Amino acid sequence: EPIISALQGIGKSLTVVVLPDGEAYKTAAQLDTIYTAMLQARCDRKAVIVALGGGVVGDVAGYAAATYMRGIAFVQVPTTLLAQVDSSVGGKTAVNHPLGKNMIGAFYQPQAVLADASVLRTLPPREVAAGLAEVIKYSCIVDATFFDWLENNIDALNKLDPVAISHAVQRSCELKADVVALDETESSALNIRALLNFGHTFGHAFEHVLGYGTWLHGEAVGYGMVCAATLSQTLGLIDQSQVQRITALVAAAQLPTRWPAQVSIDAAIAAMKIDKKTEHGSLKFIVLDGIGKSHVRAVDEAIVRQVMAQLQA
Amino acid sequence: EPIISALQGIGKSLTVVVLPDGEAYKTAAQLDTIYTAMLQARCDRKAVIVALGGGVVGDVAGYAAATYMRGIAFVQVPTTLLAQVDSSVGGKTAVNHPLGKNMIGAFYQPQAVLADASVLRTLPPREVAAGLAEVIKYSCIVDATFFDWLENNIDALNKLDPVAISHAVQRSCELKADVVALDETESSALNIRALLNFGHTFGHAFEHVLGYGTWLHGEAVGYGMVCAATLSQTLGLIDQSQVQRITALVAAAQLPTRWPAQVSIDAAIAAMKIDKKTEHGSLKFIVLDGIGKSHVRAVDEAIVRQVMAQLQA
Repeated sequence: EPIISALQGIGKSLTVVVLPDGEAYKTAAQLDTIYTAMLQARCDRKAVIVALGGGVVGDVAGYAAATYMRGIAFVQVPTTLLAQVDSSVGGKTAVNHPLGKNMIGAFYQPQAVLADASVLRTLPPREVAAGLAEVIKYSCIVDATFFDWLENNIDALNKLDPVAISHAVQRSCELKADVVALDETESSALNIRALLNFGHTFGHAFEHVLGYGTWLHGEAVGYGMVCAATLSQTLGLIDQSQVQRITALVAAAQLPTRWPAQVSIDAAIAAMKIDKKTEHGSLKFIVLDGIGKSHVRAVDEAIVRQVMAQLQA
Repeated sequence: EPIISALQGIGKSLTVVVLPDGEAYKTAAQLDTIYTAMLQARCDRKAVIVALGGGVVGDVAGYAAATYMRGIAFVQVPTTLLAQVDSSVGGKTAVNHPLGKNMIGAFYQPQAVLADASVLRTLPPREVAAGLAEVIKYSCIVDATFFDWLENNIDALNKLDPVAISHAVQRSCELKADVVALDETESSALNIRALLNFGHTFGHAFEHVLGYGTWLHGEAVGYGMVCAATLSQTLGLIDQSQVQRITALVAAAQLPTRWPAQVSIDAAIAAMKIDKKTEHGSLKFIVLDGIGKSHVRAVDEAIVRQVMAQLQA
């Protein structure tokens, strides 16, 4: 309502399209709801889409903006912590296809991302924790100083302290934007953008095997980072104390730190093999060379199984 | 078949998707046929779409390439003269929406355009003429030397002489690419890309009033260029002899040069007012400052009506 009033107050003509909540509605049908409403309202190429909501709204509305009359401007107004620190930045837009998640989409940048800490107050605590998982991720892959700051401020973040949250959101967006700018369309030979998948190969496997919705995406990534850190240690890239610091920060953010009993090693490996990030059957991971330093590595399946057995124990 | 054999011969794994012929099939449903076939064939982001066919195939397949997994490579292999000289170059991809033509799309460039003059031999003569309309258009808006060449070679072009056709296709693609490069997404303040619409404000009006399919698009553009040249003369920008040269070249290309009796001035004006290129109700045209020189101009409706009356006489 405040956004509608504000835009009407400056004389803008508005069409409001409300999408149903949830990943199940990230579909071509919802997309067409947007196209149809815009065409009926005679929106031309000067129209601007304001994507107000969580990641699903941002993805669908952003993709609508990318494709309506071959592309119009859009603004992200993310209302979840996860969307504020992750999906609203980087220009990935998409809808799901019956045969796969995010299969249809575009790289398309918003004109602006407006992230307001005050809208987060109504989020359930699990969703706050899920957002913090991505915040922790940025610090692990590229910014050791930010990791230190997170260790010192995790309680304030859990309580959604506005000053702490604003800093965490801003720093996360800066770090993500820096990484994305080096590899906007995931075509860099150095695979820079893939660093953002730290914790995600494990995380996606947990989501897949547990069934989507058992763990929130951020929760799966949270524990996925513990797994990836352990893998990095097994590969001799970091030491035990660094794995412990990461595990402690994940735990302090109220994220899971134990292997889910329902997930067998075989099932997790099988899920990893159908992941989009798996090329030619090899298992790819983002591994750490230290806190704040990371690279992409193809890892032998036997080593991955060994790490999983260790995590299960 | 030769393309399939050639690609199989170098060990490529192929999935063939055949789309039904015609603008009526430039739809979201056909697009989904492509997505589904590719997902079933487990195509990843290294897959390449080869768009073999006319403009509709190029538009739909190009849009599929722009959006499959957020964008994969594609190659245009246009098999009509119109597609060779126009739609295959410039990166405009789209499907129609029930509420409007080309409403959903993307600016997305092919990796290559392979135009083979020999595939044109099976085209009906009217489609050859329709393709030549766009060739003439490029010469009128930006290249007087090419216009002179066309005057001298129009008979060879009508007969699809391979040397003449190859030069005309190549020069047309170069000229279109030059214009597009200055304004890839139609956002230049100078409206450079709009120059490619020379003859199209009139042409679209004829298509709309006559009903799509009565005149081929290129036929409507052919006579639309005569109209736009006459308008340019009325505005004092070119003289009678230049209008005559353009009319003679259009006639020599076997394109219409007379106002279609079924189209009233009121109906044509009304059709122009709903055209996408009309902003805030003004009538926009590409006018000539000479053969090979053009600009965008908003023209008073009364002057347009006066020109139409003169053309009808």
